[in-house]
Amino acid sequence: ARVVVLPGDGIGPEVVGAALQVLREVAPDVTLEEHPIGGAAFEAAGDPFPPGTRDALAGADAALLGTVGGAPDSAWNHLPRPQRPESGLLRLRQHLGVFANLRPVQVMPGLEHLSPLRPEIAAGVDLLIVRELLGGAYFDPRRGRGEDAAFNTIGYSRAEIERVGEHAFRAAQERRGVLTSVDKANVLEVSELWRDTVTAQAQAYPRVTLNHEYVDSVATLLVTRPQRYDVLLTENLFGDILSDLAAVLPGSLGLMPSASLGARTGLYEPVHGSAPDIAGQGVANPAGTILSAALLLRYSLGRGSEADRVEAAVRTALAAVPTRDLGGTATTAELTAAVLRAL
Amino acid sequence: ARVVVLPGDGIGPEVVGAALQVLREVAPDVTLEEHPIGGAAFEAAGDPFPPGTRDALAGADAALLGTVGGAPDSAWNHLPRPQRPESGLLRLRQHLGVFANLRPVQVMPGLEHLSPLRPEIAAGVDLLIVRELLGGAYFDPRRGRGEDAAFNTIGYSRAEIERVGEHAFRAAQERRGVLTSVDKANVLEVSELWRDTVTAQAQAYPRVTLNHEYVDSVATLLVTRPQRYDVLLTENLFGDILSDLAAVLPGSLGLMPSASLGARTGLYEPVHGSAPDIAGQGVANPAGTILSAALLLRYSLGRGSEADRVEAAVRTALAAVPTRDLGGTATTAELTAAVLRAL
Ligand SMILES: CC(C)[C@H](C(=O)O)[C@@H](O)C(=O)O
Ligand SMILES: CC(C)[C@H](C(=O)O)[C@@H](O)C(=O)O
Repeated sequence: ARVVVLPGDGIGPEVVGAALQVLREVAPDVTLEEHPIGGAAFEAAGDPFPPGTRDALAGADAALLGTVGGAPDSAWNHLPRPQRPESGLLRLRQHLGVFANLRPVQVMPGLEHLSPLRPEIAAGVDLLIVRELLGGAYFDPRRGRGEDAAFNTIGYSRAEIERVGEHAFRAAQERRGVLTSVDKANVLEVSELWRDTVTAQAQAYPRVTLNHEYVDSVATLLVTRPQRYDVLLTENLFGDILSDLAAVLPGSLGLMPSASLGARTGLYEPVHGSAPDIAGQGVANPAGTILSAALLLRYSLGRGSEADRVEAAVRTALAAVPTRDLGGTATTAELTAAVLRAL
Repeated sequence: ARVVVLPGDGIGPEVVGAALQVLREVAPDVTLEEHPIGGAAFEAAGDPFPPGTRDALAGADAALLGTVGGAPDSAWNHLPRPQRPESGLLRLRQHLGVFANLRPVQVMPGLEHLSPLRPEIAAGVDLLIVRELLGGAYFDPRRGRGEDAAFNTIGYSRAEIERVGEHAFRAAQERRGVLTSVDKANVLEVSELWRDTVTAQAQAYPRVTLNHEYVDSVATLLVTRPQRYDVLLTENLFGDILSDLAAVLPGSLGLMPSASLGARTGLYEPVHGSAPDIAGQGVANPAGTILSAALLLRYSLGRGSEADRVEAAVRTALAAVPTRDLGGTATTAELTAAVLRAL
């Protein structure tokens, strides 16, 4: 098997470095090939998603991504939009055709005290956000900016909704059987189509209970009663907001992995950003990226038992030597060493 | 002074009834005139914003609104969009020209235990969300739905951003002087215009520190470090999500008031929805509506000292006889009586 490794910007190289140590340990036969993406690729090749990186992805089994993007005051933010780091990420997602972004959120038993929520609210949270990743305002070509007006379009086709809906229904079937579809159908026509499409799809999944909730309501319930959710299905922009929100429930964005699926080559990346403020200091929490590598082992390489081992090792390591974002003092290297020991 | 009272649907009539008792007590000279809106108005007049209600608003000093909308399975949700309860609310906002929706969020000292957040995170939260209320995807005419595709448009003009921005800068100047503008400028052109406009505006407010943050990041920081925020400025759809999210930090949506300003007649309404599941039982928390009436006294009638008295009385009453949403047992009538006693 061959995995393309894309460290990216900020803390990306540090957290990806940690995940590579773990991958080499549990799957020494896998070929790991590093390529630039994001701001780093712009610096190296004048393009945040350069042809060399694109070519390397052809026929690869999976891609493991770090993070992209600069500080708020980075010169990158003043480049023409197609040259900015984030465009590299969006073009990567589109190139791979990964339309279903899966973000599992679990509050681990015994680690409730890390949550910003009161422990009795956080206890037992175990949900999966399925975010549509290639549609809506992110990619709709109906967009523009003039001197005094600008617009973006949230557009969806029935087919785009169905293909990501399928992932969500199947995931709900394998989990607790409850799917909550998120929309703003009381205001938006595109949400009405979303709701109607998902409702029609539910016929094919008799064992799944489908609920529809408004996005504003879901945002509040994720904070007050997150235990009620099993699988949440959302369009791209709502999913960006809600999945980051849900991702802090276990205590830190730094813990959270994601898998983006849809075509042959899956894309795996932590949920957190490039954190330029702590980049290069060796203190970033690599758990989100190591857990993303575990998802890669499970979904793209069919190595579920190695994935289980990595996930258990990360849990053990985090309990023993928490990183700074969790109120501990462990460095990236120390947490990684603890994971390797626990393996 | 004349105030138009719009009870609406669900628990609307109950919570508005409570607020009216309080208004009559502290401002007996104010004329209060009830008119239908939302689903109730559709039932009575075939229109969720009927001409009679519109006419009554002409020349009124303010409007006090309850809530609109039915249960998820309500027949109202299958009416043509312009006849649904929510359309009545949106047409009311547009008719009044209230483009700036102010939602203050405070965790009261001594009431931190009501928050879903850990007390040390919730303590001292005191922020104001300024949500643009008449633009973006809610009102943009570029929208549509076909059998297999649908779209909405997030459009803004510089003038629309400036007029709501002014409210936010002025509020920040009177508060702690920190304004955080929310956008998704790394992806959306309309957010770029938003950011540029607000940045240019900041010149005129040298005492205000302006920050820009991405909407996904704000959603997480509202849960992990809400104390960092003073005033948040957001477009309509992001504001819908973030203001509901922020509104649960003090413990219950039921506590939260809002003021919608911009033209002669201000609109005041609680942040919570119509809660059809508990409507008619007399157990809804009227605090959000009573506190909205306090904002009405302050902003539209220039009666700041009466507003202060009402706010203090609500605090006293909530501490003494908390309602069900706060883990207590007080009914709507009991909390209202406690407020009247405390006055
Ligand atoms: C960096 C940005 C373009 C990206 C997104 O909005 O999709 C990120 O926030 C994410 O959620 O992966
Ligand atoms: C009822 C609905 C149309 C409304 C909105 O989205 O503006 C509500 O959620 C609110 O925030 O006041």
